[in-house]
Amino acid sequence: MNKIYNPSPENWFAILERPTKTVDDIEQTVKEIFKEVQKKGDEAISKYTSLFDGVTISNQEVTETEIKEAVAAVSDELKVAIQLAKGNIEEFHAAQKTSRVEVETIEGVNCWQEKRPIQKIGLYIPGGTAPLFSTVLMLAVPANIAGCKEIVLCSPPDKTGKINPAILYAANLCGVTKILKVGGIQAIAAMTFGTKTIPKVYKIFGPGNQFVTVAKQLATQYGVAIDMPAGPSELLVVADDSAVPAFVASDLLSQAEHGTDSQVILVSTSKTLIDAVEEEIQIQLEALPRKEIAEKAIANSKLIFVENDQIALDLINEYGPEHFIVCTSSDDFYIDGIENAGSIFIGNYTPESAGDYASGTNHTLPTNGYAKNYSGVNLDSFTKSMTFQKISEVGIQNIGKAIEVMAEAEGLQAHKNAVTLRLKAIKYGK
Amino acid sequence: MNKIYNPSPENWFAILERPTKTVDDIEQTVKEIFKEVQKKGDEAISKYTSLFDGVTISNQEVTETEIKEAVAAVSDELKVAIQLAKGNIEEFHAAQKTSRVEVETIEGVNCWQEKRPIQKIGLYIPGGTAPLFSTVLMLAVPANIAGCKEIVLCSPPDKTGKINPAILYAANLCGVTKILKVGGIQAIAAMTFGTKTIPKVYKIFGPGNQFVTVAKQLATQYGVAIDMPAGPSELLVVADDSAVPAFVASDLLSQAEHGTDSQVILVSTSKTLIDAVEEEIQIQLEALPRKEIAEKAIANSKLIFVENDQIALDLINEYGPEHFIVCTSSDDFYIDGIENAGSIFIGNYTPESAGDYASGTNHTLPTNGYAKNYSGVNLDSFTKSMTFQKISEVGIQNIGKAIEVMAEAEGLQAHKNAVTLRLKAIKYGK
Repeated sequence: MNKIYNPSPENWFAILERPTKTVDDIEQTVKEIFKEVQKKGDEAISKYTSLFDGVTISNQEVTETEIKEAVAAVSDELKVAIQLAKGNIEEFHAAQKTSRVEVETIEGVNCWQEKRPIQKIGLYIPGGTAPLFSTVLMLAVPANIAGCKEIVLCSPPDKTGKINPAILYAANLCGVTKILKVGGIQAIAAMTFGTKTIPKVYKIFGPGNQFVTVAKQLATQYGVAIDMPAGPSELLVVADDSAVPAFVASDLLSQAEHGTDSQVILVSTSKTLIDAVEEEIQIQLEALPRKEIAEKAIANSKLIFVENDQIALDLINEYGPEHFIVCTSSDDFYIDGIENAGSIFIGNYTPESAGDYASGTNHTLPTNGYAKNYSGVNLDSFTKSMTFQKISEVGIQNIGKAIEVMAEAEGLQAHKNAVTLRLKAIKYGK
Repeated sequence: MNKIYNPSPENWFAILERPTKTVDDIEQTVKEIFKEVQKKGDEAISKYTSLFDGVTISNQEVTETEIKEAVAAVSDELKVAIQLAKGNIEEFHAAQKTSRVEVETIEGVNCWQEKRPIQKIGLYIPGGTAPLFSTVLMLAVPANIAGCKEIVLCSPPDKTGKINPAILYAANLCGVTKILKVGGIQAIAAMTFGTKTIPKVYKIFGPGNQFVTVAKQLATQYGVAIDMPAGPSELLVVADDSAVPAFVASDLLSQAEHGTDSQVILVSTSKTLIDAVEEEIQIQLEALPRKEIAEKAIANSKLIFVENDQIALDLINEYGPEHFIVCTSSDDFYIDGIENAGSIFIGNYTPESAGDYASGTNHTLPTNGYAKNYSGVNLDSFTKSMTFQKISEVGIQNIGKAIEVMAEAEGLQAHKNAVTLRLKAIKYGK
């Protein structure tokens, strides 16, 4: 762990720098697979599934029978937990619905804004050792509330050609319309172009390794939208002597176990707290099954002491953490002043893992400083805002002159003419 | 004009195809200029301003004196028009404010969502023959309502080193914090990296030629967000015998005058209307100063006859027009059923130019089919959604078990541990 006392603002940028990866060498591979999927469809999908997942799949679509088997395979305890989480996520995201915004901006000029669902969306859920069924909840639940018609889920098969039962259970529970056994670059390519089996979608959501990340970026060049750019997960905790060191240590470690490139930062106005947390981390680390991963991330972590809350806040806003835990005697100061963060966890009894699973907030959040300019996934991520206007004869007379003058000044005579014709028709009768 | 009667759905895709441009040859130029601006800052900016704009600028920042001169140079008539438009845009975008969404998802688990402003934004306003001061209103007004702290505007200087007075007047009126005489690729690069004179921003908005479009795409690879991907402007009108052919023709022409690559489509269930509009277009075209441009766009335009409203609606949703005018005896059918469109204009007295300038809706809209997955610019474009959660001792006891079970099932022991520690502390006292 790197302890840093009172860093001067000129050095913040260097201290807070995130690990950057070069993707140039991956890009070429991704482009080639995209081209092949675009050209050969399902044939290319099968080829890459054999190559990367080491299994031959005859039918990519998960069948009703497979879903039934998965439902049977998931323990009752896990089902209850998933259902509780689903309920909370549903409640919080349903509350985000906005009604139509309607304004008569001037007499006879009625404008309104409505959000309508993105019709076809794709969810990517990674496979591997940690089956992220929680991400299925985080994406499929709001998609359903938004009213998306087609919700396609792609996840790589294991060596036996199966998807983890908990993923299938959650997908089925949350109204996913089609589940496909396809992973990696080829899954993103399939949802971008569509194949006979795998539908083309308008927006792709979900996490993934660096291949998936680059594939999602490439998808945007073919007209597909994505949830947000990705990066390694990160947590910043601000804590003082009102925080329980063991709790803080456990939160930092739960971030650290994600991967060796996880970002873990503690900011504090108390050197005592920093030392206590450091000690606790060493104790708790020993008992973790993913100790090796967590240890590496912790080695790169930063424990930063600053003189006061204002300096801490400025530094945090400069960083823009994905996850931000606030556990101080001046929590309100941080809550009011935080400008850049994905999700904020307040107080001793609000671990990050609550938001990862079950509090109701979404865990798909902007990392890598993107909290400065991107929202975390929320209900609006599954809709687009459309505007409507209806202008009466009175209305066009009220704004017609302004339009004519502005169109003329911009050199757009036909724009002016569209108004002039209407004003004349009103004046002289049609 | 291409008249197409009853196209079969298999052909819709081909009929509605948009012109695609290859950008591969531009990309290299854009990348090089980005690298140079990143390395050399203002020196590179000056170089490219000389090269592309043909003028040497000693101070890129527009001074108070220049703004005063611009304000004096704009006619009173245009000022009144701009102020009326600004008032309507303000009213409509202010109405889009959403209050904090707060839910106690389960006893002791309080979650809320707040939208906070993106702190630093950049607006790009093209120069040239048509000075788009209307776009200044469309971007700076909502940025101000959202509470963005820094609103930077870049626009290329003319040969005398000036920016069009109407642009400066609008920028000053709408609270732009810094105006810079820099255009094209170098402007986007400057706002991406920051130079001594030009601030780095978090999100870039605004239209531009294909160089600017590619530059904005490249900016996203350096952590900057953009409003939306760009493409040629487009209009689709659905009209029947209740529409006035001269009005429809004037709307199609106001789209056509934007550029030779503008997309102009009329869909109708009436052959009589189609013929009447075709005739009107020829008459009105003659009087236009931008006749040559409009003529070329009109030559590529499509007048499509379909048997009934349902087929028309399906075809329109397949296309996803940026601008969509509805002028039929069954307007409600289209309003209710439209899934993919940027902005919708309803009835005989609602020309597209009303939305371009003064109705109050935003004119920065998704083209090129992006209405399927992107919103037009709206108040939320200048904010990001952040979530907060505060959990009490009771709350963590209510959801703790579910988190433990789910974290364990995902193989994330440290996530589980963060909860277990807290539950134990509550049970046994701290």
